[in-house]
Amino acid sequence: MRRICVIVTARPSYARVKTALEAMRDHPAIDLQIVVAASALLDRYGRVVDVIRKDGFEVAAEVYSVLEGGAVAQSVRSVGIGLIELASVLSRLEPDAVVTIADRYETIANAIAASFMNLPLVHIQGGEFTGSIDNKVRHAITKLADVHLVASELARHRVVSMGEDPRYVINTGCPSVDLAAEVARDPGLDFDPFERYTGTGPSFDLSGGYVVVLQHPVTTEHDDAFEQARISLDAVRALGKPVFWFWPNVDAGSDGTSKALRMFREREGDRPFHFFKNMLPQDFLRLIVNSDCLIGNSSVGIRESAFLGVPVVNIGTRQNGRERGPNVADVAHDVDAIRAAATRQIAHGRYPASHIYGDGRAGVRIAEELARVELTIEKRDFLVPAGAALGLVEREGL
Amino acid sequence: MRRICVIVTARPSYARVKTALEAMRDHPAIDLQIVVAASALLDRYGRVVDVIRKDGFEVAAEVYSVLEGGAVAQSVRSVGIGLIELASVLSRLEPDAVVTIADRYETIANAIAASFMNLPLVHIQGGEFTGSIDNKVRHAITKLADVHLVASELARHRVVSMGEDPRYVINTGCPSVDLAAEVARDPGLDFDPFERYTGTGPSFDLSGGYVVVLQHPVTTEHDDAFEQARISLDAVRALGKPVFWFWPNVDAGSDGTSKALRMFREREGDRPFHFFKNMLPQDFLRLIVNSDCLIGNSSVGIRESAFLGVPVVNIGTRQNGRERGPNVADVAHDVDAIRAAATRQIAHGRYPASHIYGDGRAGVRIAEELARVELTIEKRDFLVPAGAALGLVEREGL
Amino acid sequence: MRRICVIVTARPSYARVKTALEAMRDHPAIDLQIVVAASALLDRYGRVVDVIRKDGFEVAAEVYSVLEGGAVAQSVRSVGIGLIELASVLSRLEPDAVVTIADRYETIANAIAASFMNLPLVHIQGGEFTGSIDNKVRHAITKLADVHLVASELARHRVVSMGEDPRYVINTGCPSVDLAAEVARDPGLDFDPFERYTGTGPSFDLSGGYVVVLQHPVTTEHDDAFEQARISLDAVRALGKPVFWFWPNVDAGSDGTSKALRMFREREGDRPFHFFKNMLPQDFLRLIVNSDCLIGNSSVGIRESAFLGVPVVNIGTRQNGRERGPNVADVAHDVDAIRAAATRQIAHGRYPASHIYGDGRAGVRIAEELARVELTIEKRDFLVPAGAALGLVEREGL
Amino acid sequence: MRRICVIVTARPSYARVKTALEAMRDHPAIDLQIVVAASALLDRYGRVVDVIRKDGFEVAAEVYSVLEGGAVAQSVRSVGIGLIELASVLSRLEPDAVVTIADRYETIANAIAASFMNLPLVHIQGGEFTGSIDNKVRHAITKLADVHLVASELARHRVVSMGEDPRYVINTGCPSVDLAAEVARDPGLDFDPFERYTGTGPSFDLSGGYVVVLQHPVTTEHDDAFEQARISLDAVRALGKPVFWFWPNVDAGSDGTSKALRMFREREGDRPFHFFKNMLPQDFLRLIVNSDCLIGNSSVGIRESAFLGVPVVNIGTRQNGRERGPNVADVAHDVDAIRAAATRQIAHGRYPASHIYGDGRAGVRIAEELARVELTIEKRDFLVPAGAALGLVEREGL
Repeated sequence: MRRICVIVTARPSYARVKTALEAMRDHPAIDLQIVVAASALLDRYGRVVDVIRKDGFEVAAEVYSVLEGGAVAQSVRSVGIGLIELASVLSRLEPDAVVTIADRYETIANAIAASFMNLPLVHIQGGEFTGSIDNKVRHAITKLADVHLVASELARHRVVSMGEDPRYVINTGCPSVDLAAEVARDPGLDFDPFERYTGTGPSFDLSGGYVVVLQHPVTTEHDDAFEQARISLDAVRALGKPVFWFWPNVDAGSDGTSKALRMFREREGDRPFHFFKNMLPQDFLRLIVNSDCLIGNSSVGIRESAFLGVPVVNIGTRQNGRERGPNVADVAHDVDAIRAAATRQIAHGRYPASHIYGDGRAGVRIAEELARVELTIEKRDFLVPAGAALGLVEREGL
Repeated sequence: MRRICVIVTARPSYARVKTALEAMRDHPAIDLQIVVAASALLDRYGRVVDVIRKDGFEVAAEVYSVLEGGAVAQSVRSVGIGLIELASVLSRLEPDAVVTIADRYETIANAIAASFMNLPLVHIQGGEFTGSIDNKVRHAITKLADVHLVASELARHRVVSMGEDPRYVINTGCPSVDLAAEVARDPGLDFDPFERYTGTGPSFDLSGGYVVVLQHPVTTEHDDAFEQARISLDAVRALGKPVFWFWPNVDAGSDGTSKALRMFREREGDRPFHFFKNMLPQDFLRLIVNSDCLIGNSSVGIRESAFLGVPVVNIGTRQNGRERGPNVADVAHDVDAIRAAATRQIAHGRYPASHIYGDGRAGVRIAEELARVELTIEKRDFLVPAGAALGLVEREGL
Repeated sequence: MRRICVIVTARPSYARVKTALEAMRDHPAIDLQIVVAASALLDRYGRVVDVIRKDGFEVAAEVYSVLEGGAVAQSVRSVGIGLIELASVLSRLEPDAVVTIADRYETIANAIAASFMNLPLVHIQGGEFTGSIDNKVRHAITKLADVHLVASELARHRVVSMGEDPRYVINTGCPSVDLAAEVARDPGLDFDPFERYTGTGPSFDLSGGYVVVLQHPVTTEHDDAFEQARISLDAVRALGKPVFWFWPNVDAGSDGTSKALRMFREREGDRPFHFFKNMLPQDFLRLIVNSDCLIGNSSVGIRESAFLGVPVVNIGTRQNGRERGPNVADVAHDVDAIRAAATRQIAHGRYPASHIYGDGRAGVRIAEELARVELTIEKRDFLVPAGAALGLVEREGL
Repeated sequence: MRRICVIVTARPSYARVKTALEAMRDHPAIDLQIVVAASALLDRYGRVVDVIRKDGFEVAAEVYSVLEGGAVAQSVRSVGIGLIELASVLSRLEPDAVVTIADRYETIANAIAASFMNLPLVHIQGGEFTGSIDNKVRHAITKLADVHLVASELARHRVVSMGEDPRYVINTGCPSVDLAAEVARDPGLDFDPFERYTGTGPSFDLSGGYVVVLQHPVTTEHDDAFEQARISLDAVRALGKPVFWFWPNVDAGSDGTSKALRMFREREGDRPFHFFKNMLPQDFLRLIVNSDCLIGNSSVGIRESAFLGVPVVNIGTRQNGRERGPNVADVAHDVDAIRAAATRQIAHGRYPASHIYGDGRAGVRIAEELARVELTIEKRDFLVPAGAALGLVEREGL
C-alpha cells in the first residue's frame, strides 16, 4: 500500500487531474492523501476544496498561503508561507510520494517541500511550454522531480532533453481529456447555467448561440493585464453574440483583469455578458462544446478543445509552445484580430477530434504508474552524453 | 549604472565569489548590493558577514532564516522564511539583476524570489554535478535563471544541454581559483593558525607536516552523517600526523557530524587534533598548500586544489560528477581505504597545476559579464531542436 | 533627536492619528518613521498608504501581512507574518520608540515586535472598552506597553487600574477629534462625493438630506456578519432617504459583510444607495456633519460625532463600554429598532458639542509627550498595593 | 468529554505541569491533546519532547519555531513562525480550550493563536512577578486569557487587580510543588548523576557535599549575560565545593551565558565542575534536596525549594516580586556577595517546609478545574468599579 499525497493548489489543476484522483482512490495499492492549498481554498476563486469534498474525496490537510495584493512580491511570500505549512503537513502525513501538478507559481512550494524532505516527487504535466514565468517554474520542478507523468509525446521529448532519466518519463496523456471524452459521448447542454451557477449580469437565450471567454493575466506581462482584458472585452462585444465570461485565477495581474471586468460591468451592465467565478469541470466542458467559440488564453482551448473539436481563438503568448490541434486560431492582443478570428471560427463550426493530448484513459494510467513505478530520490543524470570525451571517469551515481 | 544584488548564504559561497565581488565593487558600471543570509549570519558557522564587512564590503541587508534542528523539514521552513524576508529586501533594493551562487539548499529561495519578482536572475556555478539534493537544487536554479556564469567547459556543456540559450551561458572560470592563483604566487604559511584562529584542541608543531580535514554531511545521506564522520576520524587518527579539522556547514545532518566531532574531542582531547570553525579563505588556501594532504569531501579539494596541486583524498559521493585534476584520489567511507589513500597522497607530495577550473581571472570576467550582458527575463527555450518534425509551427517566443 | 516609529495598519488608525503625525513631522526633536502595514496596503481597503504619501508623509517601510480568507485562523497567520517582517523592519530602522494605535488584531504584532526587541512601546488609545476580541488585544497591548497616551479620563482610569505606572499614563485627548474640530470651524460640504470618490451605485441629490452607514463585522460574532449587515440594509432602506454606505475593514467576518452588500447591490442596484470604499478623513467628517444621521457601529459615531454633534444610531455591541455624548442612540441588531431610532435622530437634528474625547489639540500634545517622556523598557508594576500585608519584602525594581 | 490542548514550549514548563498533565490524562471527562513547541523540541535543550513521550504521553503535534541566533529580533520571528504553525495545528485539533503555561516569550504565540481563533484560553501561573520581559508577556497573556489557574494567593490578588473576573481566577497551587512533595516523602539521592546523565567535565565524590547552579540570562539584560555568568562562575569556584552546573534555556542572551560556560570549561576543565544540559524533574529535585545550596536565578529556588527547605542563593532581578519562603537569600551580581551568601546558606543547612506555593495536590486541582470551569470567550471586564460616577450607562457585556 503506497501513500500517495497529491497537492491541489487551484481550480484548473483539480479539473485536470480529477479522473486520476478517482482512479487512485479506487486503486487497491494506493492510499490517497489529498492536500488542498493556495487559491483552491479561497471564496474568491470558488473554493474548489468544497467541490473536491462534494466529489467524495477526503481532504487530508488544508494549506492557506495566499497573501493579499496583486504585486509580484506577494507570490514570493505566498510560496514562503506554503513551504512553512507543507513542512508540517508532510511530516504528519509521511507519504511515500508527493504529486504536484502543472506549473502555477505556488506549486514550486510542493516540489521544494517534497524534494528537500527526501520524498520522491512526481510531476504531472511537465515538458509543456508557455509564454510566462510558468515556464521557468515548470522546468525547475522537472529538475526537482523524480518521476514525470507527461501529457503528450512532445512533452516527453522535452523532459528527456533536459537530462531526465527516460525510464522515469512516462506519457500517460492528459487526464483533463478523460473528462472531455466522457462529455463527448453525450455532449448535450443538460443544465441551465444561470440557474445552477447564478453569477452576475443579465440572463439571455442560448438558442441563438453564444461564446465563452476565459482569459488569465500573463505573469510576466502583469502590468498589461488591465489593458489586455479591456481589448478582449471590446473585441467580444463587437461579435454581437451573448457571452459567458469567467473570472481569472488568482495571480500576479489578476487584480488588473478583475478591475477591467468590474468597470465593464458597471458601465455596460445591461449587455448580454454573464460572469461566472467557477463551474464544475464537466459543466464547463458541456458549456464550451455547445458554444460557437471559446476565446481567451486558457489551456482548455488547447487540450480539451482539441479532443472536443471546439473552435478556439487563442489570444497572446500564454499558450505559446504547446502543440495545437487544427481547432485553434492564434491571435495577438488586438481588437480587430480577435474579432476577425472569432468571426471565422464561429462560421467554421466544430472540428473533428484530435488525440494529441490523449485518448481519454489518462487517469487510470496515472494511477497504475503511481502504484507501479520505482519510488526513489536518487536520480541518475543524463546530461553528459555517454562516451563523451570530457576526461570524466565514470563513477557510481553519475 | 546597474544595481547588481548578490546574495551570499554561506561561508564557502563567499570564498568562492570574493574576487568577483571585489571586481564588481571596483567596476564603474556596477552598483553592488550584497545581501547576507542564512548560515552566513550565524555564530555557529563563523559569522561570515563579519568577514565580509571586514573585507571592506557594505552589507545592504541581512536575512535571518535558519530554523534550529537538523531535521529535513527545517530546511523547508528555512527556505520559506528566507522567501518572506527576501520579498521585502528585493522590493526595497530594486536591483537590476540578482546573483545567486552554487547550489546549497537555501539558495533556491534566492532564485524563486528573483524570478517571481521578474528580476533577471544570474546563476554562478551552474552545470556542476554532485551526489545529493544539491544536484536537484542546482539544476532547478538553472531553469529559473536567465544568465549562467559557469566555471568550466563541462559545466557549460551541461547547462546548454538542459535547454538554456547558449548566448547566456558563459564560462568565466571559477573565482575561487583566483584566490588560489594569488596564493600560488607566494605560497608560504605566513601566519600561526593557533594564534590567529584559536579554535579548540591542543596546539602542535607544524614542521613535521600535517593534514587538513573538511567533511560535510551529505543531505540525502543525513542519517549517516554521524557514522561517516566517525569513520573519517578513525582513519585520520591512524595516520599519526597532526590534524586541522574544520566544522561542517549548517545542513540537514550537520548535527550528526558535529556530534561525532564533539564525542571525539571529549574522549581523545589530548591527541593533536585542532578544530576550527572557520578561516579566512586565503589563510585556508595557504594552510592546505602547505599541508601533506587535504582529506574530506569539500569542493576545495576539487577546484582550488587542482590549481594548487595539493594532494587530495576525496571521500564519498559529495563531489561525484565534477571534473578532477590528477591530484584527487577518490575513496568510499571506509577506514582502511581512507587511510591507504591518504598514506599514498602524503608520499606523493604536490602535483603540477591544472587549469580545468580557470586561470585565475574569473572574478574580473564575472564583473565584466554582469556589466555587459543583456538583462532580460524573457528566456528563449532551446528544448525542441530546430526543424524537429514534431508538427509544431514556429511561433514567436519559442 | 528621537526616532519615533509609528506603525499604521488600517484606514481608521490613520484617520485617528493624522494630526499627531503632522505634529511629529513638524516637531524639531522628532525624527518620524512611518511604517504602513496590513490592510492599510490593500486595494480592497482603499490603499491608505497612498493617502499617507499624498498627505506629504514619507513611508519608511511597507509590511504586507494579510492572508486571504475570512476564517479566524487567517488572523493568526497574518500576525505571524507581520512579526517576521517587523523584526527586519525594526532592526533596520532602529527607532528610539515604537508607537502602536488602538486595538485591531494585527496591532498585537507591533507590540510584540517592539517589546521583544527591547524598544520602548507607546500605545495610543488604550483603556477603551469594546465588545469583541479587540478588548483582549487592547488590554494585552497595554501590558506590553511602556507609555500610554489615552483619549479620555475614563480610559486613563482603566489603564491605571490594570497596574500601569500613573506617571506613564497621559490623557492627551483623541487626535481624531482634532480633525473634527477643524471641520467644525467651517462645516460646509465643499465637495461632490460622487465626483471625488466615484464609488458604485446611483448618484442622487443631496439637498433633501441623506444618511451615512459604516458597519464593521464584530470579530467574536463573525458568523453573524452577513445577517447583521442584511438587517441594517433592510432598516436603512425603510428610511426612504438616500444613503452613503462604506465597505467594512478587513477582518474576520468582513467577507460576510461584503457579501451582503454585494447581494443588495445586485438585487436593488437602482435604489439611492451609493457605496464607497474609503474617503479622506476630513471629507468623511464633512459628509457626516452634513448628514441627517450616522448609522452603524464605527467609533466615529462615538468620538468625532460627540464633538460634531452628529445624531448617531449605534448598532450592537462593538462600541460597548465607551463613553458616549448625548448624540448617541444605542440599538440592537433589529430592523425595527434601527429604523425607529434613526427616524427619531433624523427628527432631532444636530446636538451641542461634547468634549469628552478632547478639545481638538490632541495631536500636538501627543508629539510633545513623545519628545518629552522618559523612554524606558523597565516598567514599574503597580499591581501590589503599597503597604499590602502580603509578606512581601520591598525589593529594587518592584 | 472536553478536548483540552496544552502547549508545552520548554523544559521548565513541562516540569511545572507534569502532575497536572497526568491528572488530565487520567480524568474521565478530559481528552488531553499535548502540543510540543519551540525549545522543547531541540537537542540543544535536551529534547523534552522525548521525555514527554517516555513519560507515557501522546504528542498531538510538534511546532518547530526557533530561529538560530541569540539576537532579540529572532525571538520576534520565532513567535511569528509559531503563530503560523499553531493556526494549522489548532484548526486540526479543534480543542475546547487551550492551556498555556507561565511566561516565556514564545508562549505569547499560544495565547494569540487561541484567543484569535475564539478558543477559550486558560493560563497557568499568571499573576507572578519577575524582573524582565517575561513580566510583560505574562500580564499580556492574562489579558488574553479567559481562565486563570494561579499558584499562590498573591498571584490571585494580582490577576484580579488587573480587571479579571474573580470567578475565573482560581488558586490551585503550583503543580511543580507536587513533584517536590513526592520527592520530600523519600528524599534520598537514589541515582548516580554522572552515570545517568553523562554531561561534561570531571566526576567527583558527592559524600563531602556539593552545590547546584542554574542561571538563565535575563532578557532585558541580555547584553550582560556573558558577564553575569562569569561572575557566578568566579563566586562558585571560590566556594571550594564540587558543582553541578546546568546549561540555560534558549533565550535572548543564552549565547552569552553559554559562551562563558564554554570558556570556563576550556580554561579550567579540570576543576570539579560538572555540566548538564537537562535532567528529569524528579532527579533534579533529588539532586537539590541533597545539595548544600542551590545558586542562580531559577524559579525552582523560589517554589519547589520553599517546600523542600533547600538553602538558596538567588542572584539578580529575575525572581523579583515573587513571594519567598525563609530559605532564600537574595544577592546582586557580585562575586563577593554571592560567595558570602552561599557560605552562610551552606552553614545553615535545610529549612522547614513552606506551603506558600501549594500543598502538593495542584495537578489534580488543575485537572478538576479544567473539567468543571465554564469555558467561554466572552470575558466580563472588571476595570470600571461598579457604581463609579463616570457617566457610563450599564450595558450588556460590560
